[in-house]
Order: sequence, then structure tokens, then C-alpha cells
Amino acid sequence: MLNVGIDLGGTNIKAGLVTDDGTILAKRIFPTRVSEGFEAILGDMIMLVNGVIHDARYTKQQVVGIGIGIPGIQNHRNNRIAFCNNLNWCDVPLLDRLQERTSMPCFAENDAAVAALAEANFGASRNTHDSILITLGTGVGGGMIMDGRIHTGSHGVGVEMGHMVLVANGKKCTCGKRGCWESYASATALIRQGRMILRKRQSAALEKLVQGKIENLTAQSIIDLAKKGDEACLKAFKRYVYHLSAGIASLINAFDPERIVLGGGISHAGDFLLSAVREEVKQLVFCNELPFADIVLAKLGNDAGIIGASLLCCRN
Amino acid sequence: MLNVGIDLGGTNIKAGLVTDDGTILAKRIFPTRVSEGFEAILGDMIMLVNGVIHDARYTKQQVVGIGIGIPGIQNHRNNRIAFCNNLNWCDVPLLDRLQERTSMPCFAENDAAVAALAEANFGASRNTHDSILITLGTGVGGGMIMDGRIHTGSHGVGVEMGHMVLVANGKKCTCGKRGCWESYASATALIRQGRMILRKRQSAALEKLVQGKIENLTAQSIIDLAKKGDEACLKAFKRYVYHLSAGIASLINAFDPERIVLGGGISHAGDFLLSAVREEVKQLVFCNELPFADIVLAKLGNDAGIIGASLLCCRN
Repeated sequence: MLNVGIDLGGTNIKAGLVTDDGTILAKRIFPTRVSEGFEAILGDMIMLVNGVIHDARYTKQQVVGIGIGIPGIQNHRNNRIAFCNNLNWCDVPLLDRLQERTSMPCFAENDAAVAALAEANFGASRNTHDSILITLGTGVGGGMIMDGRIHTGSHGVGVEMGHMVLVANGKKCTCGKRGCWESYASATALIRQGRMILRKRQSAALEKLVQGKIENLTAQSIIDLAKKGDEACLKAFKRYVYHLSAGIASLINAFDPERIVLGGGISHAGDFLLSAVREEVKQLVFCNELPFADIVLAKLGNDAGIIGASLLCCRN
Repeated sequence: MLNVGIDLGGTNIKAGLVTDDGTILAKRIFPTRVSEGFEAILGDMIMLVNGVIHDARYTKQQVVGIGIGIPGIQNHRNNRIAFCNNLNWCDVPLLDRLQERTSMPCFAENDAAVAALAEANFGASRNTHDSILITLGTGVGGGMIMDGRIHTGSHGVGVEMGHMVLVANGKKCTCGKRGCWESYASATALIRQGRMILRKRQSAALEKLVQGKIENLTAQSIIDLAKKGDEACLKAFKRYVYHLSAGIASLINAFDPERIVLGGGISHAGDFLLSAVREEVKQLVFCNELPFADIVLAKLGNDAGIIGASLLCCRN
């Protein structure tokens, strides 16, 4: 069974022709023309679909459907995209329009949910029933798999774990509320700490690394220096790990999932991050004498979006 | 079908003979002899079971099983109670021992989960698939119902929503961690605010009410004065409502349940609490333009524990 998976992001649209064992036979990528609006992006998606089918030397008739991971909320009640902040989309009939133009069944879910589905089928949470993927990037996303299926919630609007309140009355979040987990556990949050280090001139090594250009500052550079023992960066890293772990412990205390998978850019910090988070979470869960979720790193990397999206066509 | 439901609390043991439509035919109550240990409490539970069956003029042969709501964690992997802090129990084989002595099948779940099951079957969350009961008492408990069944979690140790982190690095909780929701949303938290009001002499009305005795101070008295417009009590109430609502919004953002039910002593504040919480939660959920969980008051009151416990015998 062949499906097309599309990973629709604020920067790029990635599409792949995927077999039902999760193998990507062909892949194409195209910049997301946000400023040109919905019709332009719809056209590009159709071009990508046709492109990957052609690249792999198949025909549309051999492909079952199209699944899309969207950077927002798919409203399953009216089959429209409710919101995609990055794309300036609100109440957009993407699926109906795409189906009309391609004559193929189309499905969409939040991108983090789709990546969680991919990890649960072929990646870090394979052979589990219930898992949560947390994506640590510009924001904090989350996808929850229950009994092998995406948990879309009772109102069909999905979950937004990054917006659990972690610090009541805390920092203002991009969503307009205060104290969201995302404001403390995203790459953006770590970079904010790095900026503070530079402003206060607390790390010569970090100054050298960015060479006077604040735009050279990345979350990875702070983590790299923390790993090397730079005092200010290590302090920032520990603070970051605490906040990330407190949110993970909240999820464990509230739901007791089987496994938690860390994905997104920050997860590339690998074992240095993972061991610190495991240690901290153990201190923060309600009862660490009883078994609780194991925490692991995502395995599928950037392909999780395409693979997971393609799986949306298999679920019915 | 008849079952016995037992609500095992730190102060009292309540037992009832319950029909499968949730009617309590007979009810008995007995103080919990915590200091006399497990064997004494086990004996009292057996006496209560026999008592309620006798009171309703039935025989043991006509009763299917015994369900127990426990103030702690039932470990379903080894069929033992993992923890009951209030009873000083740790790794206790309650079910095996009770079954041995009564020759009836016995089941146990956390008391908040059991109350949630009762509300889902016969109370405020009737006709929903997924609901969360939040019990606002000395602590904050929570029970989650998914697809009509208690969500016991992947590790069979249940959920402890009151210990989600709400204020990172916040107040010390009774569990030993910091910043748990319970430390801000329990009756204890509201009473702590009341003590502060008395210490700072901010409310003549509250002083008058407690008549110089700090032990007369209850959460209800603060809420009553807030309702009457007492400035300091209203401020404390609003602060309490914010923290309660922030945790509810976290559950909604992370999980999108169908309905949230407020129970426990604080919920007796009724519509004054409910309308304030609904208003605040609306401000705090990620996307209040899309549908989200409705919030209601529990309906079954103190009987929820007995009724829900009896339902444990029906689930298999």
C-alpha cells in the first residue's frame, strides 16, 4: 500500500511517497510561499504529490491517499483547518480542496501528532500502546498516542501540551497567555537565556562563538558549551532541563503514559540532554518507587513528519 | 446485580450495598482505626460488608463482589496497595486478604478515580465518554474516565493530577516536591491564604467569624465572605480560582477531555465558584474559539465513593 505523506511547515513543504512499512520511496521539498496565500500553497502541494509519485515511477492510481501534518489544528468536526498561525490560515478547507484537485482521499492532523504516530509505528515508541512525543523546537509541540492511535481529544481539536501552565503568572507566551511550558522548554527559551549570558558578559566562550552576532546564537551552541563545562552555559542548561523535566513530570503524574519520546532540534543534544532529563524527572514524579514512563530520544528525525502523515491514510 | 462499595478514608470507612443502577440499599459508617493498623481495619471492613448486606436483608450469596476506593495507589501489577499515606500503608495485600476472608471477588482503585466512575455512570458526567473529576479537598485528587472506564495509566499505578507542576520552583508540597497544583488549589491552600489575612489583620469580618480561634477558619468561611464582598477574602478567592483554573486549563490543553467535574468540599461553594472558574478557564485555554470541555459541579456528593467502588465489580 502506497501513500503520500506531506509535512507542511512554516518554512518548507516536504512530501514523500511512503510504503506501509514506512519506507520513503521518493521525497521532494519546496519552500512554503506563506505570503502568497492558500491557493499558491495548495498548488505547490499538488505539484509535490505528482512529483514524488512520478519520481518513484508509480502512477496516481497506485496510490491510496494523501496525509498531511499541519502546523496547527485540524477541526475534525467540519473537516477544515481551524488555525495555522505560521501560515496565517484560519478556517481553511484544505482537505476538501486537495481532494477535489487530486481525486484522492486526504487526511490531516497536527504535525506533532503525526510525528508521534510515526515514532509509535516505526521509531522510538514502537511496540508501545500509549506514548507521548514532545517536540522541542521554536515552540514545544506534543502528540499523544493512545492504543496505537492519535489522541485527537474529545472535541476533535487535538492537544497543545506546550501550553500547559508551568509557571502560574509567568512569562508571556506567544499564544498570549502567561507561564506556558513552551516559554520555558523550547529552543527559544534556551536562546533567551543565552542572550542574557551575552548581555551580562558571563561567558567568554559564548561570546567567541557568536563573534559579536546575536543571530549566530543557537540552542545547540549553549548546549555544546555546557557539555564542555562552561559555567554560565551549564547553569542555563540545568535551568532549561529543570523546566523541561517539570512539564514531563506533570504529564507522567496526570496520565502515566508508557513512554515519552523527545524530538525536535533540541533532542539532537542526545545523551547529554537525555540523562539530565531522566535524572531530573525521577526527582519530580509523584512516586518514583513505582514504575513510570521511560524517556527516550526520537529516532526518525526529519522524516517523522512525512512517514507519520502517510500513516493517516491507513487508520480507517 | 448487587455489590458492596467501600469508601476507605483516612477518617471513616463507609460501606454500602449498591444495586447496578447506583441505588444504595443500606449504608454503614465506622471510624478508621489508623493507629491500630492493617488487621484492625481489615476486620472493620469485613464487619461493615456483613452489616450492610444484613441491613438490606440480603445474604452474601446474593452479592457479586466488593469494590473499594482507597486513598492511595493500587498497584495492579501485583494486586497490592502500593501506598496509602493517610493510613501509613505501603505494599499491603488488602484485596487478597479481603477475598480470602469474604470469599468474594474484591477490586480496588484510587478514591478519586472511583468517584469519577460514579459521576460518569450516574452523576454529572453521565452520557460522556471521557471526563475528569477533580476533587478539591485537603488535597487535590483526580480521576480520569476514558471510553467509560477508569484510566489507570500504562504502569497501572493510576494518575495523580494534583501533583502536576503548576508553579515551577514554587511552594513545598506535602509530597516533598515543589509547586504542585495541590499546593495552590486545595482547600488547604485557601485556608493558608485565610491565615495570612488574619495575620495581617486585613479582614474584620473574618476575624469576627473565627472568634480568635484559627481552627475555626475553613475554606468555606473565606468563600462565604468573598461572596459577601469582603475585599481581602475576595482577593484570596480570586487568587485561588486563578490557580485552580490554570491547572484545569493545563488538563484541557494537554488532553482535551469532554467534561470536567468539580467535586470535594470546595465544590460546595456552588455557582459562585463554578462561574468564576468557567470565566477564568476561558481566558487560559489555548484556543477558546474552538469548543473545549464544559465544567460542571459533581452531583453525587459523599455517596460517589460508595457507588463508584461498587461499580468496580461490574467492569470485567
